[in-house]
Amino acid sequence: MSGNTLGHLFRVTNFGESHGPAVGCVIDGCPPGMPLSAEDIQPELDRRRPGTSRHVTQRNEADAVEILSGVYEGRTTGTPVCLLIRNTDQRSKDYANLLDTFRPGHADYTYWRKYGLRDPRGGGRSSARLTAPTVAAGAVARKWLLGRHGIRFSGHLSQLGDLAVPFESLAHVPDNPFFAANASDIPRLEAYMDELRRAGDSCGARIEVAAHGVPAGWGEPLFDKLDADIAHAMMGLNAVKGVEIGAGFASVAQRGSMHGDALTPAGFETNHAGGVLGGISTGQDIRVSLAIKPTSSIRSPLPSIDRAGQPTVVETFGRHDPCVGIRATPIAEALLALVLMDHALRHRAQCGDVELPVPPIAGQAPAGA
Amino acid sequence: MSGNTLGHLFRVTNFGESHGPAVGCVIDGCPPGMPLSAEDIQPELDRRRPGTSRHVTQRNEADAVEILSGVYEGRTTGTPVCLLIRNTDQRSKDYANLLDTFRPGHADYTYWRKYGLRDPRGGGRSSARLTAPTVAAGAVARKWLLGRHGIRFSGHLSQLGDLAVPFESLAHVPDNPFFAANASDIPRLEAYMDELRRAGDSCGARIEVAAHGVPAGWGEPLFDKLDADIAHAMMGLNAVKGVEIGAGFASVAQRGSMHGDALTPAGFETNHAGGVLGGISTGQDIRVSLAIKPTSSIRSPLPSIDRAGQPTVVETFGRHDPCVGIRATPIAEALLALVLMDHALRHRAQCGDVELPVPPIAGQAPAGA
Amino acid sequence: MSGNTLGHLFRVTNFGESHGPAVGCVIDGCPPGMPLSAEDIQPELDRRRPGTSRHVTQRNEADAVEILSGVYEGRTTGTPVCLLIRNTDQRSKDYANLLDTFRPGHADYTYWRKYGLRDPRGGGRSSARLTAPTVAAGAVARKWLLGRHGIRFSGHLSQLGDLAVPFESLAHVPDNPFFAANASDIPRLEAYMDELRRAGDSCGARIEVAAHGVPAGWGEPLFDKLDADIAHAMMGLNAVKGVEIGAGFASVAQRGSMHGDALTPAGFETNHAGGVLGGISTGQDIRVSLAIKPTSSIRSPLPSIDRAGQPTVVETFGRHDPCVGIRATPIAEALLALVLMDHALRHRAQCGDVELPVPPIAGQAPAGA
Amino acid sequence: MSGNTLGHLFRVTNFGESHGPAVGCVIDGCPPGMPLSAEDIQPELDRRRPGTSRHVTQRNEADAVEILSGVYEGRTTGTPVCLLIRNTDQRSKDYANLLDTFRPGHADYTYWRKYGLRDPRGGGRSSARLTAPTVAAGAVARKWLLGRHGIRFSGHLSQLGDLAVPFESLAHVPDNPFFAANASDIPRLEAYMDELRRAGDSCGARIEVAAHGVPAGWGEPLFDKLDADIAHAMMGLNAVKGVEIGAGFASVAQRGSMHGDALTPAGFETNHAGGVLGGISTGQDIRVSLAIKPTSSIRSPLPSIDRAGQPTVVETFGRHDPCVGIRATPIAEALLALVLMDHALRHRAQCGDVELPVPPIAGQAPAGA
Repeated sequence: MSGNTLGHLFRVTNFGESHGPAVGCVIDGCPPGMPLSAEDIQPELDRRRPGTSRHVTQRNEADAVEILSGVYEGRTTGTPVCLLIRNTDQRSKDYANLLDTFRPGHADYTYWRKYGLRDPRGGGRSSARLTAPTVAAGAVARKWLLGRHGIRFSGHLSQLGDLAVPFESLAHVPDNPFFAANASDIPRLEAYMDELRRAGDSCGARIEVAAHGVPAGWGEPLFDKLDADIAHAMMGLNAVKGVEIGAGFASVAQRGSMHGDALTPAGFETNHAGGVLGGISTGQDIRVSLAIKPTSSIRSPLPSIDRAGQPTVVETFGRHDPCVGIRATPIAEALLALVLMDHALRHRAQCGDVELPVPPIAGQAPAGA
Repeated sequence: MSGNTLGHLFRVTNFGESHGPAVGCVIDGCPPGMPLSAEDIQPELDRRRPGTSRHVTQRNEADAVEILSGVYEGRTTGTPVCLLIRNTDQRSKDYANLLDTFRPGHADYTYWRKYGLRDPRGGGRSSARLTAPTVAAGAVARKWLLGRHGIRFSGHLSQLGDLAVPFESLAHVPDNPFFAANASDIPRLEAYMDELRRAGDSCGARIEVAAHGVPAGWGEPLFDKLDADIAHAMMGLNAVKGVEIGAGFASVAQRGSMHGDALTPAGFETNHAGGVLGGISTGQDIRVSLAIKPTSSIRSPLPSIDRAGQPTVVETFGRHDPCVGIRATPIAEALLALVLMDHALRHRAQCGDVELPVPPIAGQAPAGA
Repeated sequence: MSGNTLGHLFRVTNFGESHGPAVGCVIDGCPPGMPLSAEDIQPELDRRRPGTSRHVTQRNEADAVEILSGVYEGRTTGTPVCLLIRNTDQRSKDYANLLDTFRPGHADYTYWRKYGLRDPRGGGRSSARLTAPTVAAGAVARKWLLGRHGIRFSGHLSQLGDLAVPFESLAHVPDNPFFAANASDIPRLEAYMDELRRAGDSCGARIEVAAHGVPAGWGEPLFDKLDADIAHAMMGLNAVKGVEIGAGFASVAQRGSMHGDALTPAGFETNHAGGVLGGISTGQDIRVSLAIKPTSSIRSPLPSIDRAGQPTVVETFGRHDPCVGIRATPIAEALLALVLMDHALRHRAQCGDVELPVPPIAGQAPAGA
Repeated sequence: MSGNTLGHLFRVTNFGESHGPAVGCVIDGCPPGMPLSAEDIQPELDRRRPGTSRHVTQRNEADAVEILSGVYEGRTTGTPVCLLIRNTDQRSKDYANLLDTFRPGHADYTYWRKYGLRDPRGGGRSSARLTAPTVAAGAVARKWLLGRHGIRFSGHLSQLGDLAVPFESLAHVPDNPFFAANASDIPRLEAYMDELRRAGDSCGARIEVAAHGVPAGWGEPLFDKLDADIAHAMMGLNAVKGVEIGAGFASVAQRGSMHGDALTPAGFETNHAGGVLGGISTGQDIRVSLAIKPTSSIRSPLPSIDRAGQPTVVETFGRHDPCVGIRATPIAEALLALVLMDHALRHRAQCGDVELPVPPIAGQAPAGA
């Protein structure tokens, strides 16, 4: 109940601290017989990896994943898959001055209030480094979802600070350090980040992720709606302050006659719902939008208090992303994959694996396929 | 895993359908020795109850709650508390014509795809009626949280369709049918709703809820962050399409130098975080905002398809709220209470009940009190 | 975490007290589309029902089950099935004298120490009456397991106090009030019970239950072994003090050369394992044996203490089974069915519904059938 | 739901295979602030370790534990504790011949039926080696239970094959390779084992474990009774075929007038209950007895079948314990500690940490202390 496990049937239990010996996770419930090796996982870790451009933290680690269990002769055996990533670039000295003070916007104060002690090295457990095992586990889920159901994921940055990033094409996403679905505005984004870094400040970001090819019928009707579990996973990502499904907050000002996605023999006409109705997938794209707050660690000195409650000033010298949102896209995709993987197994537990005798409407993946 | 239980230590398992014999829930994990009677629960059910103004559905039910177990001589015994609400005003004939068609924006199509069959009476399990047991369970949580920790809840409607509702005072909330924290704009809201009803259409709403007096230190660091569990609970509420904590989507355009809430000996200076840092409560107000889509059932005929995939037209004659958001405030408060109740117990399970030797900053409730 | 839910995917949440308004349960995770009515459940409740012979408690209740949810037009919808049994014969006055004292062998003292208060009426929550909802839920599981996998259950009393009850035929079980698989010794058992009742005393019993036709491959490898979950369910039954699988305690004195069940092309030669190897079903009969302690309530006065710790004498005037084991057979069958049902769903969640390409050995049900 | 996690609030998720790179576990929910280092864990691992006498498997590994997370400057932080034990003595070639055949009494056949493939090296996941992480986690639980509640554990072998081992004193347990509470019969046990090894055969064992100093009031009333969870944990241990609490199977032949443990102002007079009434601890010793079947791997050739269902002969050349029960005592103690640790946290989640106003009877530890 200490909240370090994501999922119910495809359970990912995360462990580690930013500057401890290692981070990692144990996946319990992975279907047996799936080909799996580190090569399936490493590319996703590399997408998330810091140090790849001047716009993200310069912490430089290979993030090489080791599969400790659950795979025999290249196939999953159905037993727990432990994924281990050793920490190799821990400069703990950067953080020594933070032990007695609370960095504004960080979890320093709340961890101390909860536990009475905390690991101050690099944010300890509250570091974004802990998303690495999530991305690794997500790669396993993605492989299964693609192989078995043909499901694919996409994601991109749609806003950087107060700059909207126009959508041009998903094809551009791998070609720039921002995960922008855009080619023409990249210089503008780079200039924005350079100015921000010079100012010693940070900014927020908005991320869009989607899952394509999800069958209709996944999700649960009441509390564990598919979108509720997505919101849980996304809001659990460091720095996320808002989550939308489909039309999101824009639906407040919509009329019912406009919001409801009409069904036609050719499929749904629109997708304001974001691929979920009543908590269950419609067969359309699952569309999710995230608000990520500005990085709390900035280079400018900030007033704060120490553990005795006395005023102090916090200065941050460690390596930090001036916009944590920049690297959030592959993580959000991984989280979406993990939620869908879990619901795939939940669906077949209750409703079985065999397709229901339901004629799908056009363009819809079959229900229990 | 079929998702009808909310919470891990204060577990609320919900059952029932809109037009079945009853709806209700079983609460497992309620602390023993708390005075509890139907009188503690009924007022919250009455706040949620339909039929109280011309702006909400005219379904008229007493929603009288019966406590079937877990209470002996007026005190909780620590064993499961079953709360039962009989359905008394089911006009099933209103819905007979919907059996073969899918109402746009509703769960008809997705339930059918998931289960291969569905209960069409009044939306069956996907009806907002299923929030009644949630509100009842929330009343139990609220009583404990108030008695033991002095925690209070508030909520109000901040936007109705495209009308912003200016915040004037929480004192106004009980005095109008909209849960608006406003007195001067009520005639404008009533005119808006009357016009909407005449047009046979519906609109969305935005709701703000808050918890006051939550101790610092509640929540979990990784996946089950306090805000993640809040997002899960809120997105699981019918018609919710977006959830924000604190500054929410506005934080995207904020700078880090502005977003981070400064700590001073007198407490936090601001609350952009919405009372949660690193997934753990700060001791400030927990602030949540919800986007609720327009009611999917509108009186105007809508094109759709039938179960054979052929075009048809759906006409809705049942009783429906033209804005489901109007009645959402007490439900969202109940959900927030349930999440906090669960985390209160999770916190003391791991960290104990006795206050940690941590000097709270000014205005902060003690950690493990 | 308060332990009132059995199962993970076929979740049965039990509520109620012996002399409260009702007992019941909510089943979450029931597969959709299964025909279900009260007529499927009532016969199992009738097998468990007291008052059917002079050898069991004379409490007389119809134990009529009402299905409150989850069934529409005679088929399960996949949403929670709430089963309600009203209590109709509560003679609370019988128990008033027990409020301040602790009956030896009962849960009076431990409930008081755990919760600080307790419902003394008829044992409150610790009453064997709470097995009624378990039997009702078990009937739902049995129907699905029979219809989908052809699994059947059997059970019988193999020892009554110090009388061994020779196994003659399962066909005799319904024909005597003891659930004995025996016809010739019934007069001896009746005389034994009459003597016991005259002496104002009680005795224990040994029960054997089995599941027939379970496919090979159900269960989990480590902590939640199929036999571990069976042991959990059985030891959770009131008055059970021991559980054996297959050869059980007799295996201590066996040699490995004798205990290991040889595999031959015609199937296993023996079943010392009781149908489970490494926590996973072999396809043979699942065989379980239970030790049930003598009823703690006896008519002879017993020394005890009161809540102030002072000596007192407890006299029991209520209606009690002189051997609770007599009615335990249908309950143990229901528990075995519930565990298998849960593992059936767990198996297909991870390994799928479709038969693996594994040639079964003779006499074995197919793996994932 | 794949069953590799033990516990609900003190959750131990186990991973690894006998001959993979490592075995280990992640503990989620460990209370913060407890001093912890590898030195607290290693002694328990050493008690379990093979290769320490000629009567157990000659596999020789240091079983050195590494703490990968959750500890900072020698104290637990409240975040997940990952314990890693590298496998260092894997002679996989010993097992190559077993890939196509099923060893009688082993999990080979059932794993293959469940998953369609299996790791044959040293039994893969079904190896007793996977109990090492359990023992490691148990050491963490033991430290907390001792420090906070003064709870101690003991265990001993009470029967070896058909030899009863008279109880003399727990003080003898560390002095012989059998964990016997006996000094005078050790030569007899050694001769028995030598004879068994010469015969190429194996035998079973009976183990007694107890917890001393458990407060009254731990456990849950219905399904997750304290004894039910103990039975689950113990039956989940490799080779266990039976579990008893207190008088166990002997209670079948007892009369109620004799079985019920009388309460007196000086405490309970007897402990037939084994320290649990109605699923909740009484404050007396928790007493558990286990039946362990004879090791399935014996040196004599055994008839079996291959994957095509054809007859074959299985010969085992690996290193095996001729009596797995010999090393089971520290593992069973660890499991008992893990169950109690979980219930300690479950108890304080619901009932709080502060002692209830309940006067304990003599010799009883305080309830919620």
